[in-house]
Amino acid sequence: MTKKISASFHCPSEFTLDVLGGKWKTVILCYLKERPLRYAELRKLVPKLSDKVLTERLHELTDKGLIARERVRSERSELFYVLTAKGNSLRPLLTDLNKWGLNHAAEFGVTVGQPLKALKTQR
Amino acid sequence: MTKKISASFHCPSEFTLDVLGGKWKTVILCYLKERPLRYAELRKLVPKLSDKVLTERLHELTDKGLIARERVRSERSELFYVLTAKGNSLRPLLTDLNKWGLNHAAEFGVTVGQPLKALKTQR
Repeated sequence: MTKKISASFHCPSEFTLDVLGGKWKTVILCYLKERPLRYAELRKLVPKLSDKVLTERLHELTDKGLIARERVRSERSELFYVLTAKGNSLRPLLTDLNKWGLNHAAEFGVTVGQPLKALKTQR
Repeated sequence: MTKKISASFHCPSEFTLDVLGGKWKTVILCYLKERPLRYAELRKLVPKLSDKVLTERLHELTDKGLIARERVRSERSELFYVLTAKGNSLRPLLTDLNKWGLNHAAEFGVTVGQPLKALKTQR
């Protein structure tokens, strides 16, 4: 199901959070901010989501115009998910989300992985 | 119910989003980033939440150490919700959330209010 964006919001941050559309869609955008990714790669990066839910989330992000599927020539003409221009406008925000998590994990007594780095070494 | 923060996260942004804890808690933090606010003011700023839910969200943010209730002397010794040092560390991120919403509303064909400005003129 695709949730349409409302026509008006009480405040700017409520609108931004509606566009981001929840935790997992934001996490997916954070990964795609780093580089174009194949479905199979996203599958590994977001293991907590089932195939069905991951596919739904990717459809929702596509419908909102934040991501697109593109054929990347240098990569054996495979299909990759990429940020669109609209999605790219979220880049500073997505970078901040990642940076805050990295810088404050110890303070909250939690550990955070960096699965994209692990994925890179497997390629 | 207070949801405890997990001990480990798959990626930094997942952790940040867990700390922010969803749309309405993030919206509350965005308002408190601007200035200390009375409960009655927050009540007007977040009209979509019931009293019960707003109170719960404020408790959850307090339990996470992101906000606190403080007596602000210059303001007739009233109790205000404020960002703690931990909450303040989220300031650049909260500012970005607000800024993106303001800058991109027209592009998405939506209007966004600025209720804190309206509230200021009522004081």
